[in-house]
Amino acid sequence: MKGTVGELGEFGLIRELTSRITSAPAVRLGPGDDAAVVAAPDRRVVATTDVLLEGRHFRRDWSTAYDVGRKAAAQNLADIAAMGAVPTAVLLGLVVPAGLAATWPVELMDGIRDECQVAGAGVAGGDVVRGDTITVSITALGDLRGREPVTRSGARPGDIVAVAGWLGWSAAGHAVLSRGFRSPRAFVEAHRRPEPPYAAGPLAAHLGATAMTDVSDGLIADLGHIAEAGKVRINIRSAALDVPAQMSDIGSAVGVDPLHWVLTGGEDHAIVATFPAGTRLPARWRVIGEVQTVSTLPRVTVDDAPWDKAPGWDHFTAAG
Amino acid sequence: MKGTVGELGEFGLIRELTSRITSAPAVRLGPGDDAAVVAAPDRRVVATTDVLLEGRHFRRDWSTAYDVGRKAAAQNLADIAAMGAVPTAVLLGLVVPAGLAATWPVELMDGIRDECQVAGAGVAGGDVVRGDTITVSITALGDLRGREPVTRSGARPGDIVAVAGWLGWSAAGHAVLSRGFRSPRAFVEAHRRPEPPYAAGPLAAHLGATAMTDVSDGLIADLGHIAEAGKVRINIRSAALDVPAQMSDIGSAVGVDPLHWVLTGGEDHAIVATFPAGTRLPARWRVIGEVQTVSTLPRVTVDDAPWDKAPGWDHFTAAG
Repeated sequence: MKGTVGELGEFGLIRELTSRITSAPAVRLGPGDDAAVVAAPDRRVVATTDVLLEGRHFRRDWSTAYDVGRKAAAQNLADIAAMGAVPTAVLLGLVVPAGLAATWPVELMDGIRDECQVAGAGVAGGDVVRGDTITVSITALGDLRGREPVTRSGARPGDIVAVAGWLGWSAAGHAVLSRGFRSPRAFVEAHRRPEPPYAAGPLAAHLGATAMTDVSDGLIADLGHIAEAGKVRINIRSAALDVPAQMSDIGSAVGVDPLHWVLTGGEDHAIVATFPAGTRLPARWRVIGEVQTVSTLPRVTVDDAPWDKAPGWDHFTAAG
Repeated sequence: MKGTVGELGEFGLIRELTSRITSAPAVRLGPGDDAAVVAAPDRRVVATTDVLLEGRHFRRDWSTAYDVGRKAAAQNLADIAAMGAVPTAVLLGLVVPAGLAATWPVELMDGIRDECQVAGAGVAGGDVVRGDTITVSITALGDLRGREPVTRSGARPGDIVAVAGWLGWSAAGHAVLSRGFRSPRAFVEAHRRPEPPYAAGPLAAHLGATAMTDVSDGLIADLGHIAEAGKVRINIRSAALDVPAQMSDIGSAVGVDPLHWVLTGGEDHAIVATFPAGTRLPARWRVIGEVQTVSTLPRVTVDDAPWDKAPGWDHFTAAG
């Protein structure tokens, strides 16, 4: 495909984008009408939305359009899974400059479609408008399959804290990229294209998880939300966290304690949950701490000590 | 409230926004968790998304934040109604500059909430990020109440074409505003805050509408979508269209045939539908034409003559 999105025009671009979409079981009526129709067998639908901006959430020199699509879809689909629901569909709101190569949104759509496929969902619809800053706004929908949603508020003293998925890999990859390197590839790839453990969310709900969230701001920040919502204190045992040797090597090279990435790095979209003590967890869940006490000062400690560094990332106040 | 959104911070702003939201019957779990939970009693959910950009879809010197919120919600909720569904909830993806007064997004949220209330829906969740251009991305959800969705594709020869709601008012208001005037107020208000006939959509579905859409691009353009999808020719009788005297006055003042606004003006979010001949329509529906023949060259005529001017608005190729 040649030319810019401006040359292709609104309807031309929409035609190109919708032609990339494949059918999905839950999408009863896809793009092309006033609205889509998505199956919601549970009689409830789980819904979440996230906005990604070029320059803030992704860089075109670091990530391909395809990777941005994968990542944008992944972070929304992970939110669905973190409620204990099974993703069904996404909708895309896209802002693109008229001068952008038409291949960019098309490859973005390929990435969204493929990530949806990994999660078992489909692309149901969207909107495309012209603007100065590339903006990718995704809404994901999901089905609870008869289970109650697992919120952030149910953690109780004595519960174990467990995590499924990766921690700190995206942050380590970001550190590599921001210093102008392109390897180690595994970490760069983890930054470009996170791999949330979608199936772990509904499974955790099935196993009786008392609270759950995805790790998008950083483990301490996101467990902080669970501590806050449940009015409890949570302790993480750092020895239980997996710090791969290669991550330690990157840490040494750039002068950062790799444990910091594991504790505060967002964007891997791991899923962290609390479970009643004694819950038998499948191998992909790693027990990393425990809920200690009800507390009027809810907080997260690491090896029973307060964490005095930033717990995660605030997009508004951060300099970057 | 004083200060900018940057001073308030991401979590401070989210707190302010969520504090404005009122409960709604369909919103089972509102903002504050990884995702919302919305009732979908029909076992299917209707979903649509639209993106509005400052400078392109609204101007802060023409519209208050409250009006932008009303309008952004209205255009999505109208899409739900135009499928024959009852709106249940919206999600908001918001991009705001750090230097923006914090009152702006707060009043925007008030407008979204109030428009949702008019339509019977609630605000279920959202995302807020910092960026250069104010961007309002809304996803609306709705319930079909056991009826099949009314798509754009079911129009058959002999069907009557009828419209509920306003046509051309927003375009006339836009013409007034773009010439620096603030009155007549009714038209300016119609541009700032459209009033889609939400209840007309589900009622039309109940009455057996064969095809339906909301008028967002302009009557000819949107009926063109119905003609295209149904492979039919549609004729509009201009004498059946309502051109208020005051709209004619504005037309004379600015040198525009007011019928042009009625035929091609978008953003009023009227609902246009086709019905089997003989369908008894309630007073709020106005019969404006008929579906003529199956056609390999589907198109819309006005008084049996081709419309040789622009049928509506293309955001990508238009100069404005």
